[in-house]
Amino acid sequence: MQRTLGTCYYPEHWPEDIWQQDAARMVAAGLTWVRIGEFSWSRIEPTPGDLQWDWLDRAIDTLVSAGLKVVLGTPTATPPRWMVDRHPDMFALDQDGKPRGFGSRRHYCFSHQGYRKEARRIVTLMAERYGPGDRIAAWQTDNEYGCHDTTVSYSDAARAAFVRWLETRYGGDMGALNAAWGNVFWSMDYNRFEQIGLPNLTVTEPNPAHVQAFRRFSSDQVVSFNRDQVEILRAHSDAPIAHNYMGRVTDFDHYKVGEDLEIASWDSYPLGFLEDRVGASPEKQRRYARQGDPDFQAFHHDLYRAVGRGRWWVMEQQPGPVNWAPYNPAPLPGMVRFWTWEAFAHGAEAVCYFRWRQAPFAQEQLHAGILRPDSAEAPAIVEARQVAEELANAGDVTPSQAPVALIFDYDAEWAWQVQPHGHGLTYFDLVLEHYRALRRAGLSVDIVAPTQSDFSGYALILAPGLMHLTDNLRQALAKAEGQVLYGPRTGARDADFKIPTSPLPPALDGLEVVVAAVESIRPDMPLPLANADGAVTGYLETVETAADVLVETAAGQPVAVAAANQVYCAGWLDGDGLDHLVATLCARAGLGICKMPEGVRRRQTATEEFWFNHLAEPVDTEVGTLPPAGVFRRLRKN
Amino acid sequence: MQRTLGTCYYPEHWPEDIWQQDAARMVAAGLTWVRIGEFSWSRIEPTPGDLQWDWLDRAIDTLVSAGLKVVLGTPTATPPRWMVDRHPDMFALDQDGKPRGFGSRRHYCFSHQGYRKEARRIVTLMAERYGPGDRIAAWQTDNEYGCHDTTVSYSDAARAAFVRWLETRYGGDMGALNAAWGNVFWSMDYNRFEQIGLPNLTVTEPNPAHVQAFRRFSSDQVVSFNRDQVEILRAHSDAPIAHNYMGRVTDFDHYKVGEDLEIASWDSYPLGFLEDRVGASPEKQRRYARQGDPDFQAFHHDLYRAVGRGRWWVMEQQPGPVNWAPYNPAPLPGMVRFWTWEAFAHGAEAVCYFRWRQAPFAQEQLHAGILRPDSAEAPAIVEARQVAEELANAGDVTPSQAPVALIFDYDAEWAWQVQPHGHGLTYFDLVLEHYRALRRAGLSVDIVAPTQSDFSGYALILAPGLMHLTDNLRQALAKAEGQVLYGPRTGARDADFKIPTSPLPPALDGLEVVVAAVESIRPDMPLPLANADGAVTGYLETVETAADVLVETAAGQPVAVAAANQVYCAGWLDGDGLDHLVATLCARAGLGICKMPEGVRRRQTATEEFWFNHLAEPVDTEVGTLPPAGVFRRLRKN
Amino acid sequence: MQRTLGTCYYPEHWPEDIWQQDAARMVAAGLTWVRIGEFSWSRIEPTPGDLQWDWLDRAIDTLVSAGLKVVLGTPTATPPRWMVDRHPDMFALDQDGKPRGFGSRRHYCFSHQGYRKEARRIVTLMAERYGPGDRIAAWQTDNEYGCHDTTVSYSDAARAAFVRWLETRYGGDMGALNAAWGNVFWSMDYNRFEQIGLPNLTVTEPNPAHVQAFRRFSSDQVVSFNRDQVEILRAHSDAPIAHNYMGRVTDFDHYKVGEDLEIASWDSYPLGFLEDRVGASPEKQRRYARQGDPDFQAFHHDLYRAVGRGRWWVMEQQPGPVNWAPYNPAPLPGMVRFWTWEAFAHGAEAVCYFRWRQAPFAQEQLHAGILRPDSAEAPAIVEARQVAEELANAGDVTPSQAPVALIFDYDAEWAWQVQPHGHGLTYFDLVLEHYRALRRAGLSVDIVAPTQSDFSGYALILAPGLMHLTDNLRQALAKAEGQVLYGPRTGARDADFKIPTSPLPPALDGLEVVVAAVESIRPDMPLPLANADGAVTGYLETVETAADVLVETAAGQPVAVAAANQVYCAGWLDGDGLDHLVATLCARAGLGICKMPEGVRRRQTATEEFWFNHLAEPVDTEVGTLPPAGVFRRLRKN
Ligand SMILES: [Zn+2]
Ligand SMILES: [Zn+2]
Ligand SMILES: [Zn+2]
Repeated sequence: MQRTLGTCYYPEHWPEDIWQQDAARMVAAGLTWVRIGEFSWSRIEPTPGDLQWDWLDRAIDTLVSAGLKVVLGTPTATPPRWMVDRHPDMFALDQDGKPRGFGSRRHYCFSHQGYRKEARRIVTLMAERYGPGDRIAAWQTDNEYGCHDTTVSYSDAARAAFVRWLETRYGGDMGALNAAWGNVFWSMDYNRFEQIGLPNLTVTEPNPAHVQAFRRFSSDQVVSFNRDQVEILRAHSDAPIAHNYMGRVTDFDHYKVGEDLEIASWDSYPLGFLEDRVGASPEKQRRYARQGDPDFQAFHHDLYRAVGRGRWWVMEQQPGPVNWAPYNPAPLPGMVRFWTWEAFAHGAEAVCYFRWRQAPFAQEQLHAGILRPDSAEAPAIVEARQVAEELANAGDVTPSQAPVALIFDYDAEWAWQVQPHGHGLTYFDLVLEHYRALRRAGLSVDIVAPTQSDFSGYALILAPGLMHLTDNLRQALAKAEGQVLYGPRTGARDADFKIPTSPLPPALDGLEVVVAAVESIRPDMPLPLANADGAVTGYLETVETAADVLVETAAGQPVAVAAANQVYCAGWLDGDGLDHLVATLCARAGLGICKMPEGVRRRQTATEEFWFNHLAEPVDTEVGTLPPAGVFRRLRKN
Repeated sequence: MQRTLGTCYYPEHWPEDIWQQDAARMVAAGLTWVRIGEFSWSRIEPTPGDLQWDWLDRAIDTLVSAGLKVVLGTPTATPPRWMVDRHPDMFALDQDGKPRGFGSRRHYCFSHQGYRKEARRIVTLMAERYGPGDRIAAWQTDNEYGCHDTTVSYSDAARAAFVRWLETRYGGDMGALNAAWGNVFWSMDYNRFEQIGLPNLTVTEPNPAHVQAFRRFSSDQVVSFNRDQVEILRAHSDAPIAHNYMGRVTDFDHYKVGEDLEIASWDSYPLGFLEDRVGASPEKQRRYARQGDPDFQAFHHDLYRAVGRGRWWVMEQQPGPVNWAPYNPAPLPGMVRFWTWEAFAHGAEAVCYFRWRQAPFAQEQLHAGILRPDSAEAPAIVEARQVAEELANAGDVTPSQAPVALIFDYDAEWAWQVQPHGHGLTYFDLVLEHYRALRRAGLSVDIVAPTQSDFSGYALILAPGLMHLTDNLRQALAKAEGQVLYGPRTGARDADFKIPTSPLPPALDGLEVVVAAVESIRPDMPLPLANADGAVTGYLETVETAADVLVETAAGQPVAVAAANQVYCAGWLDGDGLDHLVATLCARAGLGICKMPEGVRRRQTATEEFWFNHLAEPVDTEVGTLPPAGVFRRLRKN
Repeated sequence: MQRTLGTCYYPEHWPEDIWQQDAARMVAAGLTWVRIGEFSWSRIEPTPGDLQWDWLDRAIDTLVSAGLKVVLGTPTATPPRWMVDRHPDMFALDQDGKPRGFGSRRHYCFSHQGYRKEARRIVTLMAERYGPGDRIAAWQTDNEYGCHDTTVSYSDAARAAFVRWLETRYGGDMGALNAAWGNVFWSMDYNRFEQIGLPNLTVTEPNPAHVQAFRRFSSDQVVSFNRDQVEILRAHSDAPIAHNYMGRVTDFDHYKVGEDLEIASWDSYPLGFLEDRVGASPEKQRRYARQGDPDFQAFHHDLYRAVGRGRWWVMEQQPGPVNWAPYNPAPLPGMVRFWTWEAFAHGAEAVCYFRWRQAPFAQEQLHAGILRPDSAEAPAIVEARQVAEELANAGDVTPSQAPVALIFDYDAEWAWQVQPHGHGLTYFDLVLEHYRALRRAGLSVDIVAPTQSDFSGYALILAPGLMHLTDNLRQALAKAEGQVLYGPRTGARDADFKIPTSPLPPALDGLEVVVAAVESIRPDMPLPLANADGAVTGYLETVETAADVLVETAAGQPVAVAAANQVYCAGWLDGDGLDHLVATLCARAGLGICKMPEGVRRRQTATEEFWFNHLAEPVDTEVGTLPPAGVFRRLRKN
């Protein structure tokens, strides 16, 4: 498949008389795709039932006539103000019980049946009008599900739906739920499902089984909300359907939403992310302020390749300063091109810049576009044009399997949030730390879902932190041929958030290890490793084992133990410790590593090899000196 | 006008049999003024309609008979408990929707019509009784409008009034408002004005145009609340009317309130302010803990000289430890005298000490008075007496124009709060930083309102950060003869918070500069200047310009550019950078500067020159060695 | 009385077929006591009125038959879910007015009359069934009153009860309350008691007199809730009654609750406390992470010896990692034994480990037991067994009076919280700092209640920070023969939170000192002492005195002054300063001190002497080298 570029455009924001010129400039810049419509409901239906398609028809015609391919978004992320008059209780409630009202976006509760019906209505109308024929090249459902913490709602609608969800899960058996959750613990037994509330506003922490069930339910509500739209669109259109996920929004299961879609896409804002969600140290935030974290985007690229089962895009690419982070610097010159190539290196089919022209009004008036608000060119369009030219001489996307698989599991992310045990311990960080260590070793990585049942071809499979290990995955990993890394916390909870007791976790086939005790440790008390740099930090399990000890603390406590190709790691290792563990595993797997200089990363596909310098200074590498924001490409010798 | 002293007194707090002695002691201490009554409503009207004026009559008679001049406060800042029974919904609501109830003070919403009527009723009764004759020398309306964040209310009353305010502003044209705010952005269009809510409890940030409109409305409500009282008082009394503003309370437009009053006054608590609102570094807080910030009080003195159009007081002067700051140290000996003289140096007519006797009960029982709670003398009365003696030999207040004008604009303060772009960037700090740099250069400053239309006589006019530049001010600055400093963010938004696009900001006559892009920068990433100490920190605009570059970064990016007498500064400069800029501007303006030693400040009037040492150690200066808390006065040779 | 061990057991959590084996293992481990039942209401009464005593009968029989003594808890800390259907408004409300609902524990308001009735009902039923005969060796009322900030409630029920409480306190005289509180201050006068609200949701701080009254009321509600249960139990049983207080829960008066009970007990979680409530520096938290604070537990031991008038237990002893602190490390090997002996050294009758077997479900699934969840032995049971063996050769508990009395007053704790004057100043810390200094001097300490009327036998009596000094205590201290240390803030407020003015505080008989002024000081501005290490930090009073100055600042301001055996300290001293003051006082008292090495503490009883090493390294002491977690015991030579 050929690699293409695009942009996000809002015809409704601009006078109609410049649409044609805009379209022509997009084409001239080498863009293929234009995404439109996802925030336009108040202009499509200004008052209830008064459908105004004409302007959208003309906008689409203008874009298509210019030679662009249109991605049409369903407008359900921004219901108009009149919707609130019809459904005053449609809002999500926050953890304190406060409504999250009208005035920005995403002001709906996924469980509100009235709004669900309205969403189906407008999507049906849109699908009926634009589905037939080929004006629309692809669809986008809604926009950034879960952004602004909108997955979880504590509304009455959510409570009612949660009760029904639990009744289904436990087959209407109240005693089964009470037993599964251990409600006897503090006399929390229910007599009837209707008594079950949401796990907020409790005196002290609620039952973690209760919370985890609610997190799973909340995720399922997003999946079913999206499925509603997919079913309608598919009934009227043959065009592929995508959703644009947002970086580090993990409150719903992206794989499950992705199963209903043809394409996964995500919205990549490297500088905003570094400031507001990577969790980097101030030193690192300063060092990478104009380039972004060297692994965070790549991690998401690899994640969405999994979510899209190979087909994925960057639907929104940062083109300059954003408006929403604590600090909003401009990218280093060259970074817009760099980010685009980085996405392609990880297999993206398309990269679309958000947005075409900076809006001079409303919430994002300080979000750069590839045009300035006065329609002059902003720096990004120059870099986009450069990529378009470079693409003309580049080959197609050639998918290939990486030598390393890293499992990312949304259910585990919630489980660690529900019960971190130590302040600041998150599953996302744990997996990202493993990903970083693999990348520092020059390895390309496939992120895989916990539903994976075949690990053939992987020399190395990393499965850190899977608090609940399904039988399917347990068996798949047991029969894998590569080196398999488990732990910490593998299989620490059953499907209902109980500690399994016969035997205690992790209960692995072929690796005799029992977690006898767990402790979390202050981050200022790292436990150094024996015979290696690095330390355990934050979390350590006491294991009883007859297996070989690969890594231990200076005090002699086992950290990583192995039997045949099965390895269990009982602690949270710091960066040096993970480098040591990855090197050890690669040696066992016969996998060569290539130590990357700081800030440099490599990505190999079946046919190509890419090197990226994320630093603002030149760096010497084995493929030569990479300038700041430097991208090096070559075909692989096979 | 002669400079005088006074105090704040609460006869209702003390047995009537000591009133006469208190009055005699005030006179003996050299005090002229006594402010009373502003918290006494529950004793004036213990139950609805039961007016008890007798005690107040006697108190006033006692004070006047002793030779004191009485400032009488309207009691509307503390409605009695029975008022709440009559108007249960009279409270402001906070941003979370929680009522801000009875039990302290300022428990009313400025938009509540029922309370507005009650306020007019009690003020009318008070004006009728005390307006005629000459018992009352001056009035004070209410007390510290806006203190404790009470300007902005999210009540139903506020919402209803806001809707009417918007209808008026937009002439009832719904489409005009939608267009002006860019409500199309996220389908935020309204169908009817009644649909408009307050900009709180939204999912993510509300439209900044919405918020800025609400901030302006909220300010206007204070203006009209105050005007109600002024109209009533003026109908019954010839005495001048004041209000006592509170330090760094910027939620309403003090100039607009001031237009309705004869005298501006403010409440000066230097040590409390340093701890809770100056925003100084811990080092500076430690260094000045017993003296207060060297510029913060002077800034307010100069501000209220503008608000009062020349006539201004310190209505409440800190006399010892206060009760309300995180830490409440005692002033360095001599500081009470020092603060008094500092106010006079800036043109105050009167300085009143808060309060006469420390109250042994209720919220402020740890707030020092100039008497102790047991009626013995506290340290402050000794210093007050010293000032009274010094005043006997001092001349009158002689107003004069300073060589430098610095514009302070409440609308810009709100605009920066609505959209700081970078964490921690505030307009107040920006203006104060400029003020500090001017003071470090030994310059005297006039703060002026953005409604100023004539800048004659000013060698230097600083107008930093005016996000919305009115046509009137734009023209006034364009025709000024002194050096005019604009930026950053000058004219960055139109009257409705849109970015002007034809052309882009700042669109100045006579200075060709275009802000092509803006970025905010981490505070730990300062951008050093070329050929000068100092750096840009926090915020920088990319400008396109044909003008001369006065200041640039070491990397070569223009920071300050100039053509003729117009100068635009595109970044937020640190202290050294501002010193450099001020020196450059003064050189261009032909204005001599006199570099102040740390902690020392100078203030010149038409006839006098004052030097103040804010340090706890002696400092050598060109007028000799100033002791700690030292005040040096001399007549200017003209 | 003989020293014994025990554990906390939840038969309802486990299959009945292992009860007998559990009981046998308890006995084999040397345990005497087993506490049960306190969270079992939903199994005793699954639906309203359906009493299921059979399982509990069998559990008790099993335990008693095995030779264990049963402590039976009333189950009122965890009302079942159906209770909420009967009393939907039974919850406490938090300061923001949000209900603290069902889903964990302690979800009731102490003032809710409906729930009070239900609590009396279930306790009556339990007492009727288990009171007669001798199956039950002791009772526990409820569980950890006040834990999770549950003492104070802002519910309607609390408000109604508070109004009645005030009517009683002020004899129905509205004017008396208004005068006592100084409500005139900001027109806060009430017309009728019914107008009085709770002191939350005010615009700025409420009247401290109002808050302090509410704090006293809230404490009294706990006392009366507990008294309800005691009266019922006592009518049916001769067994002693205890309550298990929680560490540093100071929102109610433990002495007053204790007056109704035979035994005080508390729940000791040294590692959890160090992380979440001791308030230690990060360095200290790291140094003692696996051992706990060296004074915090001892302080509570001494406190509950006072609360229990000599009879006290540790009802819950941490046996391994807990689940609820920010970080949850495992104890250093030996610490479980160490903590047990430390409790016995301070006079505990019994130490019970919480809990027998780690629960694999619900909120505390990561809270260690002395058995693992799979019933294997956890490390703690080994140490418990060791203590049991050591106890066999040890004598009985011999109570004796310490040479030093330190007064701890809950009323003062609330008063400082209501009005700390400086950020972070708390009474608890002040008293604990004094306690630490005494312990660093090797002294054994009795904590005594402020109701103490006889201080005979004490060489040294410390009474820091008693903001309200009752007449009774004032007289008792005045006639004490030992050295008496008062201040800071002694007698600073009368019974209604007014500053006494004739004379000003502290108004001591026999020590002429007047607090002329007070100030709080930034913690980074310590005022060094003259002629001694140490400094005043955070708080200092200016005193007028004719007494001898024992300690003064380097600047010459008196800090500690003395006349005969009365000493007043006007400031908050740091550790070195307190060491100096304690040494000075001991010298005056003729009391020898024994300077402890860091981390080492000594405790002497009438017959025994104990040395404890709280460090993770060996420490040399005058009784030899103590290993990590080392306990040294010897009989005292008398
Ligand atoms: Zn987006
Ligand atoms: Zn004031
Ligand atoms: Zn407990």
